[in-house]
Order: sequence, then C-alpha cells, then structure tokens
Amino acid sequence: MAEPIFERVAIIGVGLIGSSIAHAARRGRLAAEIVATDASASVRARASDLGLFDAVLETSAEAVAEADLVVVCTPVGVCGAVAAEVGPKLKVGAVLTDVGSVKGAVVRDMGPHVPAHAAFIPGHPIAGTEDSGPDAGFAELFDGRWAILTPLSPADEADVAKLRGFWEGMGANVDTMSVEHHDLVFAIVSHVPHLIAYNIVGTAADLEDVTQSEVIKYSASGFRDFTRIAASDPTMWRDIFLNNRDAVLEILGRFVEDLTALQRAIRWAEGDKLFELFTRTRAIRRGIIEQGQDTAAPDFGRRAAPETKG
Amino acid sequence: MAEPIFERVAIIGVGLIGSSIAHAARRGRLAAEIVATDASASVRARASDLGLFDAVLETSAEAVAEADLVVVCTPVGVCGAVAAEVGPKLKVGAVLTDVGSVKGAVVRDMGPHVPAHAAFIPGHPIAGTEDSGPDAGFAELFDGRWAILTPLSPADEADVAKLRGFWEGMGANVDTMSVEHHDLVFAIVSHVPHLIAYNIVGTAADLEDVTQSEVIKYSASGFRDFTRIAASDPTMWRDIFLNNRDAVLEILGRFVEDLTALQRAIRWAEGDKLFELFTRTRAIRRGIIEQGQDTAAPDFGRRAAPETKG
Repeated sequence: MAEPIFERVAIIGVGLIGSSIAHAARRGRLAAEIVATDASASVRARASDLGLFDAVLETSAEAVAEADLVVVCTPVGVCGAVAAEVGPKLKVGAVLTDVGSVKGAVVRDMGPHVPAHAAFIPGHPIAGTEDSGPDAGFAELFDGRWAILTPLSPADEADVAKLRGFWEGMGANVDTMSVEHHDLVFAIVSHVPHLIAYNIVGTAADLEDVTQSEVIKYSASGFRDFTRIAASDPTMWRDIFLNNRDAVLEILGRFVEDLTALQRAIRWAEGDKLFELFTRTRAIRRGIIEQGQDTAAPDFGRRAAPETKG
Repeated sequence: MAEPIFERVAIIGVGLIGSSIAHAARRGRLAAEIVATDASASVRARASDLGLFDAVLETSAEAVAEADLVVVCTPVGVCGAVAAEVGPKLKVGAVLTDVGSVKGAVVRDMGPHVPAHAAFIPGHPIAGTEDSGPDAGFAELFDGRWAILTPLSPADEADVAKLRGFWEGMGANVDTMSVEHHDLVFAIVSHVPHLIAYNIVGTAADLEDVTQSEVIKYSASGFRDFTRIAASDPTMWRDIFLNNRDAVLEILGRFVEDLTALQRAIRWAEGDKLFELFTRTRAIRRGIIEQGQDTAAPDFGRRAAPETKG
C-alpha cells in the first residue's frame, strides 16, 4: 500500500465539507492521522461521537500543531480570524488550504497571517448538498466532481502537487485557475443561482393572494427545485455574498438586463424571442449530462425515490 | 372489477402528458377504449408503434367521434384551433378537458367552440419532467401529485365528479379553484421559476469571460439544477408565457423588486438582511418535504444515481 500523502491532517470546522473530507480521506488512506476542531462545543461533541477523527481538539491552535495539512472548512467570513489564530502555530513545511466558495476575500483575509515557512494554497471543491453539520458528510461527496486550486506562488509547485494528489485521492478531478477568474466563474455557476433561488422563495412566501400552503402543495410544477438550494446553510451563504460582492453584482446586473429583455418580449408577445432562448438553453443541459455532472434521469431521477402521498 | 369511468377516451396530442394519461388510465382500468391523435405524422406513427392506444387517428375530428372524455394535451397556443375543430363533433354528454398550464387563455380560446350539449371542464395536472414526446410518458407520473380542475358552471357538478374520479384513478389528488386564481398561483410556483431558470442559463451562455465549457464543468455548484428546468419543451413554454402574460408580469415585477432589495443589501454589506431571508426560506422547503411533494434525500437523491466520471 502507498504511503499516506500527508502524515497529519487537521480539519477546522466540521460541517458537510469537513466531515466529508474525513470520510473520503479515510476511504483513500490519504492521511496517517486526521484531527479536527470546531468553534461550536456541540459540534465538537458530535464529531467525537461520530468517531470520524483521531482527536477532536478544543481550539484551532491545538488542532494545527504538528499538522502537515490544515484544511479550513469554516464559513468564509471567519477564515481571517482562523488564520490569525493558526498562522503562528503552523509547522515548517505545512500546507494550509481552505474550501471556501470565494477566493479573493479568503486570500485577502488569510494571506497576511501565513508565515513564510508554510504554503498557503486556496482551494474550492465543487460539491455539496443542501444539508449541513457533522452528520451530513459522506465519503462519495467528491467522486467525479471538480476541486479547484488557486495557487498564489510558483514556488509552491511541489505542495500544489501533493494537495492535488489529496483531492484526487478523495475522488475529485483537479483544476487550477487564478483567484480573480475563480470568483467570476462561481458568481455565475453558483452564487447568483443561489441568490435568485433564495429570492423566488422569498417572493412566494410574501404574496398576499397565494397562500404558503398553495405554494407548497403545487411546488412540483417547478418551484420545489429552487427550494432545495434555498435550504442551504444561511451563514455560509451570507458570507459568500458579502465576500464576492463585485463579481456577484456584475453577474446580477447582466441577469437582470437579460430578464428585462424577456419581460419585454412577454409584454409585446414576441414569441420568437422566447422560443429562441428556450431552444438554446437545452444545449447546455446536454453538455452537463454528457460530462457526467448531472444524472440523465428525468426529474433528477426522483421517480426512483420513495415519496409519501401528500 | 368496477366499470370504467369513461367508455371511450380521446387524447389529442401525444406528448409527455398525453402518453402518461394513456399509461395511467390503463393501469387504473379507467376507460374501455383509449384513442389518440397528434398534429405530427411522426408522433402518430410512434404512438402506434408504442401500442399505447386502441387506435391512433389522423385528425382530431375523427378522434373525438363517440368519445365520452376528450383530453386536449397540446401546447396551450393551439387549444383554440383544436376546439374549433372538435367542438362540432363532440357527442351529446361528452366531457371536454385540457391539461394546459394556463387556464384563462384556454377558457377564452376553447370556450366559444364548445356546444351546449357537452361539458367543458378545464384541468391542469401538476406533474411533469423535462422530457417531451410520446416516449416520455409513464404510468406513475401523477401518483401523489395534484390535479387542478377549474369548473366553469355549477351545472357541470356530475361531470366534475366523474373527471375527478378519472384523475384520482390515475393516482392524483384533485383540487378545484377559479380560473383567475389558478393563473396567479402558477405564475409564482411554475411560470416565473421557469422564466428565471431559462434566463440564468442564457446569461451564462452569453458571458465573454467565462467559457461554456467552464459553466458545464462546474455546474454541480448550483447551476445544473436550473438547466433541468431550462431543458423543458420550448413550444409549450413559449405558449405559456404568451398566454399568462398579466399574472407573469405581475409576479415578475415582485421578483425583480425583491431581487433589487437583495442586490442593495449585498452592495451595502447588510449581512443581517441576507441572513434573515436565507433562514426564512428553509421553512418552505421543510413544508414541501413534509407534504410529500419532494424527496427528503439530499441533492434530490442524486447520490443514488450512477454517474459517469467527468
């Protein structure tokens, strides 16, 4: 059997991603030892009960001592505070990474606290579910998904290769790109989609003439798809929007511009414009299915799922 | 065994819904005979090959002769033309219904062609997938879903009861409501959600700085959910927006108003406003799952689906 890639891995923040990394790294035998911590005492207690880690420590400073790889899995809004605490404790040669959905703000907030003797390589696995917390994780979360690294310095090449191997060992494909490009790409493929999902659910909840009960009963006509995304962790998503402001506002501006054109096409009964868009959007769905990024089963394969009768 | 509810059922338009009605009515033994027609010769040929119907006729006029129940399953934009053709051929006591996602325009376009000796009871089953055509149908499509009837006259009570029994026999729960209320409810739970899904996919396709290949690769971060809806039938959806204009524009106006407030909260870093909305939207998701209108499995249960590695 191959040597583990990292001797000791420390996970800071035991939510969906932190716990999934523990499951997946164990499955791939990628670390000799995995320790963890979390800001919440109840999450730490639960993480201990789950037996996912070799040790669950009280503080981030304790968790990173002697760690070869430190993975910050907290909401991005507290990454800076975590880095301030762990930076001075990082051992020589340690690799520090994160899993945040924005990279510019993470680099801005964490970067200044990383000592020269450690390598800071920001990361972002493109995987998740709407569930949160230490019980939500599972070993297969990253299988066939992408993990993105945004290396900051050419000098980190050997460490980038090790970190790439760690993600590949957890089942992911790895891409690298610049911090700025990452934040623009994820504004369109993730952040603005989440924002409009939250927004439509909010609009529906506030209507006077349609009851919440009606919205729920008839949600299978499209609405329910948006509610899954709009059930994601509120703290995580608040932090994402506050920390990727410029790219989100840029993409949102384009979204509203395009929506206004559609609105006008509806008002003036320009059916051809609607038909043209509705035809064009099918090609992207086909590409996603062909590349294995979604199931080809109709309705996400929900037919197979047992459902109670409403 | 019980008698079938209708002796002869005629289905006009053999797409996802028309073919699913045939499957479900056979499963429930709800009709002694089911015949069909479609405007497309190739769809008629395919419908014959599938063996779903006792007969596939060339014209709507032929299909409705001697039919006790006529179900118009065409895009709503051609309902009026279909009614003009079949109205004079309806037998005495026949029930005419439809499955369109808008009801006001259908009543406006079909109503004038229905003779006094037949009952016109508009309908709308809240079920579907992103697939289209005669091969897309299946018997379980309506199980546990809602079907809405919008009766126009108190005199139709006995026919409404029969039609209700037909939908219940296909596995659906049945609600009745007014035409106007229907069109407002479905503007929020279906039409505007589809519009913004089509719109975000279009916005993504048009970006200069993010490639279509990147959008596809990283779509598991949220975007892919929207592409399923945006792969729905273009003709059907063009007709829906052209025929439910007022309600769609009203709901769209509210959606944009709410989105503008969110945009402003992001610009001014008002994290509390974001957090409040993101917390509130979770309750609606819980209601949908509790009432059996979506699977409780994370990520729509996609974990269970076999996926190729991208």
